Amino acid sequence: MRLATLRSGDGTVAAVAAGAEWAVLPHSDVGDLLRDPDGLRTARAVAAPSPAEGPATPAGGLAPVVPRPSKIVCCGHNYAGHIREMGRDLPEHPTLFTKFADTLTGPADTVTLPAWAGRPDWEAELAVVVGTPLHRATRDEALAGVAGYTGANDLSVRAWQHHTGQWLPGKAFDATTPLGPVLVTPDELDPATGLALTCRVNGEVVQSGDTADLVFDAPALLAYISAFTRLSPGDVVLTGTPAGVGAATSPPRFLADGDVVEVSLQGVGVLTTPIRIEFEECA
Amino acid sequence: MRLATLRSGDGTVAAVAAGAEWAVLPHSDVGDLLRDPDGLRTARAVAAPSPAEGPATPAGGLAPVVPRPSKIVCCGHNYAGHIREMGRDLPEHPTLFTKFADTLTGPADTVTLPAWAGRPDWEAELAVVVGTPLHRATRDEALAGVAGYTGANDLSVRAWQHHTGQWLPGKAFDATTPLGPVLVTPDELDPATGLALTCRVNGEVVQSGDTADLVFDAPALLAYISAFTRLSPGDVVLTGTPAGVGAATSPPRFLADGDVVEVSLQGVGVLTTPIRIEFEECA
Repeated sequence: MRLATLRSGDGTVAAVAAGAEWAVLPHSDVGDLLRDPDGLRTARAVAAPSPAEGPATPAGGLAPVVPRPSKIVCCGHNYAGHIREMGRDLPEHPTLFTKFADTLTGPADTVTLPAWAGRPDWEAELAVVVGTPLHRATRDEALAGVAGYTGANDLSVRAWQHHTGQWLPGKAFDATTPLGPVLVTPDELDPATGLALTCRVNGEVVQSGDTADLVFDAPALLAYISAFTRLSPGDVVLTGTPAGVGAATSPPRFLADGDVVEVSLQGVGVLTTPIRIEFEECA
Repeated sequence: MRLATLRSGDGTVAAVAAGAEWAVLPHSDVGDLLRDPDGLRTARAVAAPSPAEGPATPAGGLAPVVPRPSKIVCCGHNYAGHIREMGRDLPEHPTLFTKFADTLTGPADTVTLPAWAGRPDWEAELAVVVGTPLHRATRDEALAGVAGYTGANDLSVRAWQHHTGQWLPGKAFDATTPLGPVLVTPDELDPATGLALTCRVNGEVVQSGDTADLVFDAPALLAYISAFTRLSPGDVVLTGTPAGVGAATSPPRFLADGDVVEVSLQGVGVLTTPIRIEFEECA
């Protein structure tokens, strides 16, 4: 089953893929649907198999598939190949930080940054969306608590990320994290089997990863996080990015005004993000 | 004016000090009051000077003064004396991380941690509560946007804080950050003039700071944060802790079952936190 949050007038509606169409559901977005204990059942009743590429994007466009998660937790340093090529040992614990819901933006939205937000960079990621409350969950409980998978670009402002040792400022610029385009339920998609995760900048492939290469997979991350904080339906976990970010390229390469970033996750779809740099002054 | 969030039945109510009593307001908590453009005016109309120690704590007790902020941002390494005694230079940028609203707990609540949450430690802090929307605010706009000041204990699980270089897990255990006891408006309290900030463990003074010693003061922090993310009424910023945390004591000292931590902020009041360690097994 493929779920999306469609923009509609001033708001949004949840929808499920039903053949070549999106069937609108009685929820304001996919997070709202997941918080309703009957939400997935309601969606399942009208879902129908779609063409491989899914229904066409509706006229109003797509919002972040979960626009207002109560918690967004992100993992860094999580692809084994990338860690080894940096000469590091595999970590014992996941490297975690957070984003605010305000960071999210739609899967085809333009990301606008002021010029003083220096060294913007791409990070193609698999994102996991929580479906049931999780508190000190075992790995099996965590896996059973996954609502589905989607894609993300953890677009990072490297200059602000490295102002200090804590990454928050460079990870939390408002409306800079595309999330979507759709949520695919676990009966149709299993990242452990290996999904291709690709990032292109202006058409050129810059990242080419495989979700089977995650050091901490979705259930491992949810179990670890739920040891210290309760997770709720609609919460989002970004699982980290494979090799090939701009900061690690030689010479380093960053996003410029007019660039277009495409993150593609096999079985989920593509996030297309035009970049706009504003040359206003900093207050 | 002194505002509090009182526990009442299954919920909470906002209240303002009116002489020796708390006058209940038509808002569910102080965050709800701050989000109402008329909230502070409503409170001001019934406020009256109180004895120095404020009205007595009501029978139901106090909730976190702002129980559900949309954003909580915290600063580390922010007291000049502490930074210099560690042999470090004063930083150019604040070191920021976040907490979830679920971390908050009332100013007299017991904090319960599992035994596997190793090396729990205290951090007495001044907290700033936002009163107006702030986006790329100047220092003056930020200062004008402060709703008031309160106290906090950024109680930190050092073992989990240092699992990796990112501090989140040790800072985000649910219900471990006492916030309160009351919010004091800026017309009555100015941290720049120097407020005594003290932490006692079982009666022994372990931290003794002065808010005039902050490297990044309240308006500096709000201006910096609002450069990357919008702040809203009721958002909370923890400003960091002075010298004397347990991890920096020689030999290091951590909290144990039965300890009582008291954070005292001049002009605001005292947070009293009994510590309970549960010796259950980790899932």
